[in-house]
Amino acid sequence: MAARITHATTHDIRFPTSRSLDGSDAMNEAPDYSAAYVILHVDNGPDGHGMTFTIGRGNELCCAAIDAVAKLIVGRDVEGLFADMGATWRLVTGDSHLRWTGPEKGVIHLAAAAIMNALWDMYGKVAGKPVWQLISEMSPEDMASLVDWRYLADALPPEEAIERLQDKAEGRAERTADLLTNGYPAYTTSAGWLGYSDDKIRALVSDALGQGWTHFKMKVGANLDDDCRRAGIIRDEIGPARYLMMDANQVWGVEQAIANMGRLADYAPYWIEEPTSPDDILGHARIARAVAPIKVATGEHCHNAVMFKQLMQAQALEIVQVDSCRLAGPNELLAVMLMADKFGLPVCPHAGGVGLCELIQHMSFVDYIAVSATHDNRVLEFVDHLHEHFLVPVTTRNGRYIPPSAPGFSVEMNEDSLEKYRYPDGAIWT
Amino acid sequence: MAARITHATTHDIRFPTSRSLDGSDAMNEAPDYSAAYVILHVDNGPDGHGMTFTIGRGNELCCAAIDAVAKLIVGRDVEGLFADMGATWRLVTGDSHLRWTGPEKGVIHLAAAAIMNALWDMYGKVAGKPVWQLISEMSPEDMASLVDWRYLADALPPEEAIERLQDKAEGRAERTADLLTNGYPAYTTSAGWLGYSDDKIRALVSDALGQGWTHFKMKVGANLDDDCRRAGIIRDEIGPARYLMMDANQVWGVEQAIANMGRLADYAPYWIEEPTSPDDILGHARIARAVAPIKVATGEHCHNAVMFKQLMQAQALEIVQVDSCRLAGPNELLAVMLMADKFGLPVCPHAGGVGLCELIQHMSFVDYIAVSATHDNRVLEFVDHLHEHFLVPVTTRNGRYIPPSAPGFSVEMNEDSLEKYRYPDGAIWT
Repeated sequence: MAARITHATTHDIRFPTSRSLDGSDAMNEAPDYSAAYVILHVDNGPDGHGMTFTIGRGNELCCAAIDAVAKLIVGRDVEGLFADMGATWRLVTGDSHLRWTGPEKGVIHLAAAAIMNALWDMYGKVAGKPVWQLISEMSPEDMASLVDWRYLADALPPEEAIERLQDKAEGRAERTADLLTNGYPAYTTSAGWLGYSDDKIRALVSDALGQGWTHFKMKVGANLDDDCRRAGIIRDEIGPARYLMMDANQVWGVEQAIANMGRLADYAPYWIEEPTSPDDILGHARIARAVAPIKVATGEHCHNAVMFKQLMQAQALEIVQVDSCRLAGPNELLAVMLMADKFGLPVCPHAGGVGLCELIQHMSFVDYIAVSATHDNRVLEFVDHLHEHFLVPVTTRNGRYIPPSAPGFSVEMNEDSLEKYRYPDGAIWT
Repeated sequence: MAARITHATTHDIRFPTSRSLDGSDAMNEAPDYSAAYVILHVDNGPDGHGMTFTIGRGNELCCAAIDAVAKLIVGRDVEGLFADMGATWRLVTGDSHLRWTGPEKGVIHLAAAAIMNALWDMYGKVAGKPVWQLISEMSPEDMASLVDWRYLADALPPEEAIERLQDKAEGRAERTADLLTNGYPAYTTSAGWLGYSDDKIRALVSDALGQGWTHFKMKVGANLDDDCRRAGIIRDEIGPARYLMMDANQVWGVEQAIANMGRLADYAPYWIEEPTSPDDILGHARIARAVAPIKVATGEHCHNAVMFKQLMQAQALEIVQVDSCRLAGPNELLAVMLMADKFGLPVCPHAGGVGLCELIQHMSFVDYIAVSATHDNRVLEFVDHLHEHFLVPVTTRNGRYIPPSAPGFSVEMNEDSLEKYRYPDGAIWT
């Protein structure tokens, strides 16, 4: 019997993380990690759960935008939507009126992300597979058909994308087996939040070393002397061989980024993340040339694949930090991963927040199995917050992500959490 | 007695323009021109009216975002806000939670535009001056202080901006007098909408010629043969000496834009507007090199000054089409105008829609009086729709804009219009 999407319900879910300064950085001093959460209800078969991520105020705008975007798919037959997920992506992002309020950026694109994530969750559940498996089993042609090539073909023609996928098709089974056994490399940001005391940082880094982590990220950008002191503490703890990454969260101008990294270079950072405005492709390119061999990383606020295309074309980034809720779901993530493969750049996704780890892991597994076919120089961000709210929380072992086997996108939250953290009338807020 | 902002009211105002296909183009086939309109109420003195512009669905999202942004200024003393409008801009755009849903783009930035437009309207009314006069009478230092330089100083340091403004300060009085007597050059888009028949186009162009217009814009991008036929009709009517501009409204990929302009070059267009994704700076640069001497114009969807900076740095645009509702008000428009002056590029703003002409004229006058000090090669868009809804509608004479003398930003709508076109319960919608 055919299934049809009957309606969508949105849920404004906010966690009061600002109370403990988890997630504090130079730009975002007191975030309340939040999910604009959507359930797509069907008349037959599993519902789809999806979300986009914000840091508190404004989450209601994303919920309202999800309501607007959901109207484009309510009443549709799910088989038809799943049969051509490329067309479905264009449907969800292509309404000319809604597009005007972006286009393909900001609140309306965050809403498209939530809807696409929910559709893929439903598709995985219908197929009885986790999303990483569903996508990585697709033929190269089907995979390429997920992407909207209109604005990307000048950098990577779809025919070339298919050829590249075909070249790597052979080892898929071995890589899948490797992943299930050994997991996918990760790094931790749990220790380096700006709001933490020196003692707390030292203790957290020490703990993380004990758990097998080898890559550590810290926040910089509020005060350069403080940044140097905190970098010194972490470098002391982790020694010279492990990796220290720095994240400025966009607070610097171009010249200032170059000057400040001159001092922070003393602590041998592996990368500097978001050194300036996420929109400043040419600025990132200048910074990249100036701070080499420190690598420039960006992407959590890179709003669409067209921006990633240019960051690559301009040699402005060396670490591709896609985000599962900023880009509009697996289709657009795949577009960026295919381009990154062509440009020879590692995809090291942004995660953390709430739900971001659960979602993005699927796409790193797809990258390894089917796209780049390697995890050399790749690390997936891990932050140990808020996983307990999900039915299928991420699993890490020895600093590596272990793939989930449950069907869907791992993004479904416990009903209790949806109730308790609902803003403004859930128990935690009243 | 001090005045304080007591509350904001938002108004979802939509005009059913899709019924006549006014405003139709290849991307936006049936727009309903809409205003997310805000009134900032004070306890003493004039209220401030402002708006951002959308094309229908999604206007409610901008209204909701305006409500969220307004909270940042409700309760504030207006004198304090007006005393440092640069700080006020950072206040309105700088809330870290709301910023996450942009940053500085999409729905949240459109809302910031509405709020800033309303604040400047109020400021003009308090000062008893139209906004163009208020700003163009500021000292170079005060004018430069309106701009947030953090991400722009690498292209134009504020000290250099001040020097450039000082160099042009002397002729301000003469240029103001010239403007009041002779007006500011404009062009018309009223004839070239995609949904119009050939006969209607011919008649409208003929009418416009009679009214003294010398620049004509047409929409392209739906079907190349049709585009050529319609271009031929307009070129026939206007002759070889007048200007024909083309607007593709983002429907082409980079290669496709270059190929299609190869054929459309037969009709000697002056510029091609929005040939591809508004985010594709490097794509525009490639197109600009390929289609020269046809000029590349873009900006109505260019979401912030950081993007304009790069379009200029990359030599990707030759006509700077700022929009009063896409950029966050006069502060950010001024930033782009100052950079355009440095890069030697003409600012020819986007207008049309509803309210865009009323707002943007002020900034073209500022550009002429105080920034570029010229209107050579500048034309301001004019579309003859929906002006009747404003208390102080734009005035044109012989194809030129005549500056308004009424205090404020010319954006205040008739109460009857606010009532009748309110969505979804105004008379026009029920």
